[in-house]
Amino acid sequence: MSNQQPAVTFEEIRALVRNLPGPDLEAGTAALQRERQLTKPAGSLGRLEEIAQWMATWQGQHPAEARRPRVAVFAGNHGVAARGVSAYPAEVTVQMVANFQNGGAAVNQLCEVADADLRVYELDLENPTADFTQGPAMGEEECCRTMAYGMMAVEMGVQLLALGEMGIANSTSAAALCLALFGGEAADWTGRGTGIDDEGLARKIAAVEAGVVANPQAKDDPFEALRCLGGYEFAAIAGAILAARVARVPVLLDGFACTAAAAVLYKADRRALDHCMVAHRSVEPGHTRLMQAIGKEPLLDLGMRLGEGSGAALAINIVKSAVACHAGMATFAEAGVSTQG
Amino acid sequence: MSNQQPAVTFEEIRALVRNLPGPDLEAGTAALQRERQLTKPAGSLGRLEEIAQWMATWQGQHPAEARRPRVAVFAGNHGVAARGVSAYPAEVTVQMVANFQNGGAAVNQLCEVADADLRVYELDLENPTADFTQGPAMGEEECCRTMAYGMMAVEMGVQLLALGEMGIANSTSAAALCLALFGGEAADWTGRGTGIDDEGLARKIAAVEAGVVANPQAKDDPFEALRCLGGYEFAAIAGAILAARVARVPVLLDGFACTAAAAVLYKADRRALDHCMVAHRSVEPGHTRLMQAIGKEPLLDLGMRLGEGSGAALAINIVKSAVACHAGMATFAEAGVSTQG
Repeated sequence: MSNQQPAVTFEEIRALVRNLPGPDLEAGTAALQRERQLTKPAGSLGRLEEIAQWMATWQGQHPAEARRPRVAVFAGNHGVAARGVSAYPAEVTVQMVANFQNGGAAVNQLCEVADADLRVYELDLENPTADFTQGPAMGEEECCRTMAYGMMAVEMGVQLLALGEMGIANSTSAAALCLALFGGEAADWTGRGTGIDDEGLARKIAAVEAGVVANPQAKDDPFEALRCLGGYEFAAIAGAILAARVARVPVLLDGFACTAAAAVLYKADRRALDHCMVAHRSVEPGHTRLMQAIGKEPLLDLGMRLGEGSGAALAINIVKSAVACHAGMATFAEAGVSTQG
Repeated sequence: MSNQQPAVTFEEIRALVRNLPGPDLEAGTAALQRERQLTKPAGSLGRLEEIAQWMATWQGQHPAEARRPRVAVFAGNHGVAARGVSAYPAEVTVQMVANFQNGGAAVNQLCEVADADLRVYELDLENPTADFTQGPAMGEEECCRTMAYGMMAVEMGVQLLALGEMGIANSTSAAALCLALFGGEAADWTGRGTGIDDEGLARKIAAVEAGVVANPQAKDDPFEALRCLGGYEFAAIAGAILAARVARVPVLLDGFACTAAAAVLYKADRRALDHCMVAHRSVEPGHTRLMQAIGKEPLLDLGMRLGEGSGAALAINIVKSAVACHAGMATFAEAGVSTQG
């Protein structure tokens, strides 16, 4: 992560959220009108029809395009990892980033099948965030700078952005973030992550509880929750989602940690995630609860819980398929097919 | 459909079903062993891991390949269409086949995104099967010849076969087939298909009941059920599934009609569909009941109900992704990533 970013404040981020562009209803309506004429019974492509209309509405063009998707994976390290909350040691974050760079991870193969451009962003891996059970994970400037850095994942020409993360202990951070944002009990939001045992799960629940106790301001303000309980990858993902909205790039969210980062924006403004779909339902139990809290239904449900943007990358071809059907199918009139009746 | 096929009898089909090749446990075990070494927490790719192992087991090779998928769509016409059981007139079958040939249907676009070879097989569209409410839809020779014809969809080099159908009124045929194979009430298996109104649904349920009453032998023998209540596309799909098993080609089944054709083989032998996965859950209510009856969980659940192999074509990229992850990911040792603990 570069230190060359201009300083940003939560005040500026709040102003950005207040002024996010809305849906392009003209493009959305054009999609709806074309959909009705395509050679199939009305509604018979189910969510593919919903996706085609959503893409047009948030790209602000009809027909929408999905030929140039990007998968952006943000990697960060977490002070709370020292509390024994993960089944893997913290050095795995940097090792997995090397694996991404060498093409050996799941997300590399998934990007190849989706013909997607993969970008991996290392977020100061040698300097983990502070242990949030003792106080805020980040300072405001650090958090805002990382949000601004995340915005850079949205470059000219990207037509669909799939977001993911890598960071040992970040499902602990995600659980604490959800507890602060949506309430409930720590145990409601805390799962086994990469596969921790019963004792580790107890430590993880204790850390989540301690984090919310140590950072009382997190309950009152979603950006304070992000700063105090999140991590670099959470801040970068939130930034990328905002930049995508401004640049009219629809977004696919991956699993629990990625959706938790997005939920910060939802708490700031209920409409802030209207240009995002959740790509898949993670096995991590907090993810289902979180999707209910933000009103999203996942596209896929394949029992995955890997992170690294894998579920979002896998859903790219679903979006491409929806867009291709919408743009490429013949109308009843063009094909000379009799209509219902 | 050509009349040049050699005569086949149910006796020969039954012998084929009795002698189907079993799983290649060596290839399946090799897949399981490699899976454990890949750079991800065990089980974290969920059903993608299951698919990779299933592909190796039924292709009889490790690692499995999915670069050359084929989508085979069989189209047939149904005498029962005259009973007003569909929202569309019977001529739509031939019109939609022309639409497939001109590249204008949903399945054409889906095959392009999946880089799949699409083949459309017209099954004597000018001569619908007989109205099954009055007696058998087909004779034994006609049914067997169509099964043999369907077998030809499995050509050398195909690595994955996605099956689909087109045929106005064939969800009525599928419902009658399921009622004969698995019992229950006609209404349990009968849905709105392409979108019929309440009166049409009542006519459809009545036709399904009448079909089973008019063909009592259908309850005692799955091939008699296929002959009496199915249609050409059902027979061809059943044939293609058998040929795929022999040629070691894993199969993706589409929605209700396609799965009903497959269920004929399941009733003949509980292991006959072990090389098949159901690609998606159709909105047609009988499909969920049918999948429970044959013990299958769909890969996708996107509210689709189009037929024409659309759900199966959409799932091809899921299978490609699973195979790509399995073959292309680095092992923990190769990547120098620390293992759990």
